[in-house]
Amino acid sequence: MWSKYPVINEELTAFEEYLGTVLKSKNKFLTDASRDAVLSGGKRLRPAFTIIAALHGEYDRKRVFPAAASVEILHAATLVHDDIIDNAKTRRGKITLSEKHNTNLAVYTGDYLLTKSLKLLIRTGLKPEKLDILARAITLLCEGEVDQYLNRYKVTSVYDYLKRILGKTGVLFSASMVLGAKTANLSDDIARQFGRFGLSFGAAFQIRDDLLDIFSDPAKEGKPVLNDLKEGIATLPVIMAIKNRPSLLQEVNEFFNGNGDINSLLTSIKMSGGVRDSEKLKDRYKEKCRHYIEKIPRTPYTDAMNEIVNWL
Amino acid sequence: MWSKYPVINEELTAFEEYLGTVLKSKNKFLTDASRDAVLSGGKRLRPAFTIIAALHGEYDRKRVFPAAASVEILHAATLVHDDIIDNAKTRRGKITLSEKHNTNLAVYTGDYLLTKSLKLLIRTGLKPEKLDILARAITLLCEGEVDQYLNRYKVTSVYDYLKRILGKTGVLFSASMVLGAKTANLSDDIARQFGRFGLSFGAAFQIRDDLLDIFSDPAKEGKPVLNDLKEGIATLPVIMAIKNRPSLLQEVNEFFNGNGDINSLLTSIKMSGGVRDSEKLKDRYKEKCRHYIEKIPRTPYTDAMNEIVNWL
Repeated sequence: MWSKYPVINEELTAFEEYLGTVLKSKNKFLTDASRDAVLSGGKRLRPAFTIIAALHGEYDRKRVFPAAASVEILHAATLVHDDIIDNAKTRRGKITLSEKHNTNLAVYTGDYLLTKSLKLLIRTGLKPEKLDILARAITLLCEGEVDQYLNRYKVTSVYDYLKRILGKTGVLFSASMVLGAKTANLSDDIARQFGRFGLSFGAAFQIRDDLLDIFSDPAKEGKPVLNDLKEGIATLPVIMAIKNRPSLLQEVNEFFNGNGDINSLLTSIKMSGGVRDSEKLKDRYKEKCRHYIEKIPRTPYTDAMNEIVNWL
Repeated sequence: MWSKYPVINEELTAFEEYLGTVLKSKNKFLTDASRDAVLSGGKRLRPAFTIIAALHGEYDRKRVFPAAASVEILHAATLVHDDIIDNAKTRRGKITLSEKHNTNLAVYTGDYLLTKSLKLLIRTGLKPEKLDILARAITLLCEGEVDQYLNRYKVTSVYDYLKRILGKTGVLFSASMVLGAKTANLSDDIARQFGRFGLSFGAAFQIRDDLLDIFSDPAKEGKPVLNDLKEGIATLPVIMAIKNRPSLLQEVNEFFNGNGDINSLLTSIKMSGGVRDSEKLKDRYKEKCRHYIEKIPRTPYTDAMNEIVNWL
């Protein structure tokens, strides 16, 4: 993914090694479970963002790696807790903690990871008021998840959808970048641009995820088609399709009730422009990302941000 | 409980009001659920400890209250997550969150409270390295809980039992006191004595809880007799009784398997000195508490600590 940027690749390789060393508890179960949860793959997008932002300033591994690990471990913690909620049996092709060990131990493993994340954050040497970045992110994450859960089997407005995904996905990308910028002693103003980039990136990333739920090859991405909808979550293509053709709501509600045919529903969503309009909104967020990139003082690493936006 | 100490009572009343103001989320559900979890009663021992420790130094509500709230909210977070694990239907005579709203929302409410706790900690103005106190406490809490869970239906040694309860209960009392001492600018050495007091207090407190599980009137304390044992947790009286009479292990294992009579088991535990030896160990921890109190420079509030030890 970062093939044109050997420095980023190099840092990510060293980071992976670092990540392996920080997860050690006196409790063997927690060590194994948390290593399972964190080291089992994933694209490491959030640590990459922290590293890229930090490369724009006074880069210091000793401060950047704890910040990047803090974000990635927090991400893993939320996945562990999400898998309890979603009753997910697999994640990234592997059996989930909650499925392997039952809910109970997954709750504590998530708590343990959450705390580990905050301990690492303290190690970055950031001022206490900056530590709040991550705490705020977790709060917004919880709010986003609770909101999504309480609105299962409901088709929300596009506005509510956006509010939710910014909380669910955007804030953590945003925090990744802000932490990177601050550990590299960049100004609050530049850090803010990085943060806005992260927020818009997160929104586009989540819309991409929603689109994958419509199109993806389950074997490849590891997610079955319309899985979100099966769980009662109306994704953007569904919301957009209903916006264009309100009568579709009945078909979706029937699907929520366990009736309705998946293939005919998929066709209806596509025919009503649900996919097209979602792509459009995603493109708008990609444009926003590019806009914020312009406001960041150029370095040899700034273009890596453009590339990752194009990848979306 | 603090009738002889009007200042402590006054501070606790003001603190209760403060606590009501800090739990506000944009998400109505999280606001209600977290207020339910935190404001539904409880003895407020941990905040009292923070306040008492702080009264030994430069007392400043603006720093003490966030610290006390941080500890109490963390305590509430662990109770919310514990209730998921224990499948508890009621707590303090009220229906639990996990029972009322299902596991899913309880997971996020706990996460939200955990984060709220850390945000409040940041507000105390303590140096980042001191913030670690609470993060370490949560880690030990998780380790203690996981350890307890993995050792269900096993009778552990007294040593392992103590290790576990110090993690499960002691560290949070200890953190309460250390945070109080540090927000009042007391020296690290004095803070350490407060911390040791808290740790020993926690151990005695947990043993008291274990004894209540044998003796209590379910209507009064809200806990049914031998509830822990029913959940597969060997409490201290059980461990002590088996230590004195190893043949009792079989009877306990039968109880774990759902056979065995509760009354005859209760009699066996008492007859084998399980209760007497637990009382003895509790008294040893109470003695330790008094020992640490001696090392703390006397103030009009120091005696409150002696009183709470006697209450045990």
